[in-house]
Amino acid sequence: MKLSSLFFFVVFSFLSSSIFAQTDTISKKKFHWGKAQSDTSAGYAQAILVDNVLYISGTVSRGTTMAEQLKGVYTGIERTLQSYGLSFQNVVKENLYTTDIEGVKQNNEVRKAFYKGDFPAASWVQISRLFMPSALVEVEVIAHLPKKQ
Amino acid sequence: MKLSSLFFFVVFSFLSSSIFAQTDTISKKKFHWGKAQSDTSAGYAQAILVDNVLYISGTVSRGTTMAEQLKGVYTGIERTLQSYGLSFQNVVKENLYTTDIEGVKQNNEVRKAFYKGDFPAASWVQISRLFMPSALVEVEVIAHLPKKQ
Amino acid sequence: MKLSSLFFFVVFSFLSSSIFAQTDTISKKKFHWGKAQSDTSAGYAQAILVDNVLYISGTVSRGTTMAEQLKGVYTGIERTLQSYGLSFQNVVKENLYTTDIEGVKQNNEVRKAFYKGDFPAASWVQISRLFMPSALVEVEVIAHLPKKQ
Repeated sequence: MKLSSLFFFVVFSFLSSSIFAQTDTISKKKFHWGKAQSDTSAGYAQAILVDNVLYISGTVSRGTTMAEQLKGVYTGIERTLQSYGLSFQNVVKENLYTTDIEGVKQNNEVRKAFYKGDFPAASWVQISRLFMPSALVEVEVIAHLPKKQ
Repeated sequence: MKLSSLFFFVVFSFLSSSIFAQTDTISKKKFHWGKAQSDTSAGYAQAILVDNVLYISGTVSRGTTMAEQLKGVYTGIERTLQSYGLSFQNVVKENLYTTDIEGVKQNNEVRKAFYKGDFPAASWVQISRLFMPSALVEVEVIAHLPKKQ
Repeated sequence: MKLSSLFFFVVFSFLSSSIFAQTDTISKKKFHWGKAQSDTSAGYAQAILVDNVLYISGTVSRGTTMAEQLKGVYTGIERTLQSYGLSFQNVVKENLYTTDIEGVKQNNEVRKAFYKGDFPAASWVQISRLFMPSALVEVEVIAHLPKKQ
């Protein structure tokens, strides 16, 4: 093999591997609170849009009572949805983690008001604790956007 | 600005905001037990189909033993799948929450029979309790439909 | 009805029902450790690709400390991603289940190194126990592939 051929082979290999590497990466549109792209301390983004699917992280809130935290959690999810031009109508799946499932059941009206009668598929479980020791409830959702024609 | 221009501006703004609001909503096909579209008391639907993805809620069942509950849970999921013309072949992801993970492991044959050897990606965790105090196990799944050409 | 008509009716019904049954099944590309398609004992596959969505099962690892297990878990997820030609750039959602959430927080640098600053939407919860009694942490992720044009 001539040196010139070798040169082109190396360049070609480099270019094609870059191209293949590129084709595997995806386009993501992140949302996080404030100006950040993500929380680099804990290491997560509040939400990621890929294709027409929006994944929203487990969302918590301040407040001492369950009613306060539920209101804060769903308000946070609503703000996240709105940043993509969406509403709770777009939410298809909800996972709720709480340290007090009876407390959630007793304050469910606070949560239900956000859905306006159009409820998602959901799973609720009572777990031992959440990321922040003071958090009583954490909710993650999946929302879909209309597909582009 | 003339009054007529203002009028058209207001009408146009109203129409365009309606149009934009509409383009963000999605088409969902819900399934729930009986004739209901969803359980408006707890606030969830047993399943939601959006695009070609089916989200099935955490499913529980009656029964006093783990074997009975597992059989009931997967029979419920099967009925949900069938209402969309699907089977366990379409299930790609399973999340199982239980208060007794050893009990699930000991009765796994009951669960495995439903999958007929074609198993999904899965995560099982032992949690503190479920929505109904009597529930020993709750299972949610994601199923995909074939894409329309 | 003539016998010949009946014959064609039966054959037609059989063929069309086969066709309809076929249209409901989906194409899945599974990955599991070693040569297996799935773990037929526990009844799950490490990962399933459907359309352009990759569902990775709750992944655990050996190791006595949280740092060791975290490194093992994310190395396992990385190997799974690589088997599809993907990287952590493709991960859009992470669910982490642990028996010691403070331990995960203290060792988060081990986990964060895998994401290289490009973090997913995530939920972390502390639960009672995992499938293997020795497991301190289990992580499942959803990854997306670029859409084919």
